Amino acid sequence: MSSYKYAVFGSGSWATAIVKMLCENKSQIGWYMRSVYTKEHLLKEQHNPSYLSSVEFNLEQLKLSNDINEIAKWADVLIFVIPSAFIYSELEKLTIDISNKIMVSAVKGIIPETGLLVGEHFHDVYNIAFENIGVIAGPCHAEEVALERLSYLTISCADPEKAQAIADALSSSYIKTKISDDIIGTEYAVMLKNIYAIAAGIAHGLGYGDNFQSVLMSNAIREMKRFIKKMHKMKRNINNSAYLGDLLVTGYSVFSRNRMFGNMIGKGYTVKSAQMEMNMVAEGYYATKSAHLLNEKNEKKTQLPIINAVYAILYDGKNPKKVFKKLTDKLD
Amino acid sequence: MSSYKYAVFGSGSWATAIVKMLCENKSQIGWYMRSVYTKEHLLKEQHNPSYLSSVEFNLEQLKLSNDINEIAKWADVLIFVIPSAFIYSELEKLTIDISNKIMVSAVKGIIPETGLLVGEHFHDVYNIAFENIGVIAGPCHAEEVALERLSYLTISCADPEKAQAIADALSSSYIKTKISDDIIGTEYAVMLKNIYAIAAGIAHGLGYGDNFQSVLMSNAIREMKRFIKKMHKMKRNINNSAYLGDLLVTGYSVFSRNRMFGNMIGKGYTVKSAQMEMNMVAEGYYATKSAHLLNEKNEKKTQLPIINAVYAILYDGKNPKKVFKKLTDKLD
Repeated sequence: MSSYKYAVFGSGSWATAIVKMLCENKSQIGWYMRSVYTKEHLLKEQHNPSYLSSVEFNLEQLKLSNDINEIAKWADVLIFVIPSAFIYSELEKLTIDISNKIMVSAVKGIIPETGLLVGEHFHDVYNIAFENIGVIAGPCHAEEVALERLSYLTISCADPEKAQAIADALSSSYIKTKISDDIIGTEYAVMLKNIYAIAAGIAHGLGYGDNFQSVLMSNAIREMKRFIKKMHKMKRNINNSAYLGDLLVTGYSVFSRNRMFGNMIGKGYTVKSAQMEMNMVAEGYYATKSAHLLNEKNEKKTQLPIINAVYAILYDGKNPKKVFKKLTDKLD
Repeated sequence: MSSYKYAVFGSGSWATAIVKMLCENKSQIGWYMRSVYTKEHLLKEQHNPSYLSSVEFNLEQLKLSNDINEIAKWADVLIFVIPSAFIYSELEKLTIDISNKIMVSAVKGIIPETGLLVGEHFHDVYNIAFENIGVIAGPCHAEEVALERLSYLTISCADPEKAQAIADALSSSYIKTKISDDIIGTEYAVMLKNIYAIAAGIAHGLGYGDNFQSVLMSNAIREMKRFIKKMHKMKRNINNSAYLGDLLVTGYSVFSRNRMFGNMIGKGYTVKSAQMEMNMVAEGYYATKSAHLLNEKNEKKTQLPIINAVYAILYDGKNPKKVFKKLTDKLD
């Protein structure tokens, strides 16, 4: 196994789950979090106060800090697990030279400020070579990692040796990994599935049943395939776990925040009231806008009936019931 | 719309749902059922005593009979919705000439006595031309048809005009239809999904979670694609509703009898005790044997890790926990 030093940036549930995975293999893991309170609580109680609090850490393995540069400087592999809405401003805090770091995205979305995937952002803004950019994709609910339930991850990187090193660092009795060279495709899949989870939630909220849900998912994976192919054409099996599996675990989960957000919209909440009620903005909300804009930019547009329907509801204030009625005629 | 006369053979929940669909379009529908009690109850109470009893029929639309030949003689389109374990013996009762009938299968499995698909059985045993053979595929829980929740059906027939006629007869405000020429592929899909639903149930019974479930389904659709391609090579998109959609609605449904059966096996019931407890044999139980045998017959076998795992558990008495532990290494 390689001797890379790993660090995780972020303190949400997925960040906490990834730290737990690394703890199975590494004697020391860097962990940056913005909140001083979270750090203090971790030092005192050995668990994250807000997420996966059943997971107890051995503090000797953790190098905790509220200073992003301290952790970034120390580590070789930097795993970013920050909501897409905050990743831009967090990365701006970096003042050290990161040109030789391996930059890994476990962010579930696109950067709203630029419309770029996180990997593209690393490449375009920070001049990181694609051989040094990685993506961690599921299907994986963090909550099941906490329970050590068997889960599968796909680690993508243009350099297969680096992909394998990261995969090895994350593998354990309950985490199986595979590697891929489709950085762009897996990142898009991670982003798009959240839009489809919102769609699934809206459908549920409107009273559509399981029969329709399965038709929606069957159309969603075909739409995802078209979208990703348009953005980055290469040979990929869209039914692999990183694409279809991740779509399913999100679209069928009643715990998915995106699905829950959609469900409220379907039940008649406005976007604002749903966001206030949930006390957060679901990743898929930004992803919907980004995906829509990306397609608009293309000269030859791809048919994206589901994404367009979600966009019309979330951004054009269209009536969910009417939009979905029309959508049902476009699905098959 | 064509002037075909339609009849349904069978009185389970799926048969009852199909009669309901036809009632939206046809002034008279033939309905054969073996049980005298069911027929009498329908005549008296206007609903099926055992299945979808909330669905009330207008008796003027129904031509009910316990005589299979009476109904078969009267109708042009014969829709069979009998459990695969009984279809062989029911068909043997036919004494009238059926060579010019349009024979449609809505049976969810293979004929155990011959290992043939129902469509193949019509062709091989009754000399029905493929242009006169149809298949009705979901994804569609009968229970949601009763509730008039939007559902999608795929009707397959080598003759597109006949496929369309049948599709029109089933379409309504809550049923959308599409046609296909892949009779064999859709029938195999209907059969195979039940095996994967058993696998999903076993996994659940053994304590695997949602992350694993999505990996299982992602592998299942790839396995299904390989299997069907081997049996009948043609251009098909395995992510269409009739294949992937049907797999999902069954694999993710807690009401699926196949999934329930698997769940009991995973929890430690023997095959016999699970069947006794459920008071029925799940279709997927027979399908597992048939699929396994069909693959064994092939010179170049297809990789079917999930089907083989279910077979080892159901027919070779292997330990579910050990078999699934091994299976997890073969999935990705």
